[in-house]
Amino acid sequence: MTDGVTPGVKAPKWLDAYDSEVADSFLATNEKMTGLPAFLGVRFVEFAPGRLCAEMLVKPELLTPFGNMHGGVLSAVVDHVLGCVCYPHMKRGQWAATTEFKINLLAPVSKGTVRVEAEIVSLTRSTAVVRIGLENEGRAVGVAQGTVLIRDPRG
Amino acid sequence: MTDGVTPGVKAPKWLDAYDSEVADSFLATNEKMTGLPAFLGVRFVEFAPGRLCAEMLVKPELLTPFGNMHGGVLSAVVDHVLGCVCYPHMKRGQWAATTEFKINLLAPVSKGTVRVEAEIVSLTRSTAVVRIGLENEGRAVGVAQGTVLIRDPRG
Amino acid sequence: MTDGVTPGVKAPKWLDAYDSEVADSFLATNEKMTGLPAFLGVRFVEFAPGRLCAEMLVKPELLTPFGNMHGGVLSAVVDHVLGCVCYPHMKRGQWAATTEFKINLLAPVSKGTVRVEAEIVSLTRSTAVVRIGLENEGRAVGVAQGTVLIRDPRG
Amino acid sequence: MTDGVTPGVKAPKWLDAYDSEVADSFLATNEKMTGLPAFLGVRFVEFAPGRLCAEMLVKPELLTPFGNMHGGVLSAVVDHVLGCVCYPHMKRGQWAATTEFKINLLAPVSKGTVRVEAEIVSLTRSTAVVRIGLENEGRAVGVAQGTVLIRDPRG
Repeated sequence: MTDGVTPGVKAPKWLDAYDSEVADSFLATNEKMTGLPAFLGVRFVEFAPGRLCAEMLVKPELLTPFGNMHGGVLSAVVDHVLGCVCYPHMKRGQWAATTEFKINLLAPVSKGTVRVEAEIVSLTRSTAVVRIGLENEGRAVGVAQGTVLIRDPRG
Repeated sequence: MTDGVTPGVKAPKWLDAYDSEVADSFLATNEKMTGLPAFLGVRFVEFAPGRLCAEMLVKPELLTPFGNMHGGVLSAVVDHVLGCVCYPHMKRGQWAATTEFKINLLAPVSKGTVRVEAEIVSLTRSTAVVRIGLENEGRAVGVAQGTVLIRDPRG
Repeated sequence: MTDGVTPGVKAPKWLDAYDSEVADSFLATNEKMTGLPAFLGVRFVEFAPGRLCAEMLVKPELLTPFGNMHGGVLSAVVDHVLGCVCYPHMKRGQWAATTEFKINLLAPVSKGTVRVEAEIVSLTRSTAVVRIGLENEGRAVGVAQGTVLIRDPRG
Repeated sequence: MTDGVTPGVKAPKWLDAYDSEVADSFLATNEKMTGLPAFLGVRFVEFAPGRLCAEMLVKPELLTPFGNMHGGVLSAVVDHVLGCVCYPHMKRGQWAATTEFKINLLAPVSKGTVRVEAEIVSLTRSTAVVRIGLENEGRAVGVAQGTVLIRDPRG
């Protein structure tokens, strides 16, 4: 992963508040996923301040009858990673929920691995804006951007 | 379903070119879905010119550990229905692929059924723009809009 | 304007909290606009609970050299109306700011009037999600949806 | 401007087809803009393969009565630059039209200059997907992504 510094934009202060133990605990869940992430087969590969890289194998149950990965698979993984990239920057006990996102699908995916790179572009106490790039077989196959709501523990 | 006529907008010509046999063949696939649609448990309920209504049961494997339906489930079903609503207006052999969409998630979903209403707002020979509303337990839980590319048969 | 009731969705409670005096004060500003709204020539036509209708004349300075209305004009008016539709449902002194939106442009606009219909689909104390339809010469020319942040007075 | 190479993604072939004369002719129009771009005061600063940098002074007529730049100004400039970044990669006589885009507004803008960086992420014969970043006073104030339709000359 690159350092994510956009020319002309100073590194924001929230980048410093990064809890690597939280990141490590997410990496440790790769073998224990349930529900949608298990169906998708998402694996977290690397966390860094403001960044998360994940991967997904292009397995048969993720394809349409036409042999291409279902667009819904790529949008589901975007939704999943949008929230996860924020956790190492949140307080323990808080939780993240995607409130909105937009995706452009650029090229069909039919084999290999999909690599998902998420980068926080803005973070406040209650909200984050995240950009995501999807890559397969050496080419860009999707780009997305969306908003995550950060919530205090319930109860 | 209502008739979808927006005040001030004339009913477009493409509404007339509606192949109800194609719609019926989609309804007949409810028991035979595979891959992502099978995992989601999407069922087509009703087709009409420019419209499709689908449903999805809120089953345990679609929830996050927090007990809410995973946002990725709702975005995946949006992607799926975006394309399907177009088929009765397409020529036999053509296929539809979502190129982009945007979703706003409005409220958490934890039980019951999610009802998905898709409406084509614009259709040309090669592209469609579709709006989608998601409803659960009597309230709006999501809205989406996106673009579908309509392609001629390969080969 | 229609009543905006989507089948299967109960009328939300916030629809009742509608301050018609605020709506009237917006209608009274039509002749006094400055800045971007003045350049665009936006006119509020009608407010109703959860709804706003505005219009914009297709005047020469809004066209590109190719003779079509600049897409930026339609996106700017969407941004403007997104916030304005919320004011009659907000407390006096609060202000509204668009945080994100998405627009699909459906057909070129070259003459006549653009009619803009905004409808709130979700409203909480701090946020609203709004859908917008743009119509010109009897056909849909754009659809948009976005999020508005509702903020308490500063200071 | 940086070189825009995303890790893991090979430089696409279309990057090589770059017509610097077209780029120069755009730079030469800075003093002759009309309509919306003139109102906004957009100035092209630099073109490069797949990239365009533009700037806009935060002048009084672009502010709301609250003293912040109108969100519609930022969305309008996004729409404008989305198309312009494509021209040096298009055939002479072709024209570009935004079909859809999405913008997240990250922070208020009240003075100085807004810098707009556009980067093409995907380009085919008939369509381009473009990402845009907006910067003001050393911080990110907006991100956007959208689709441009590339059309052959009319007539």
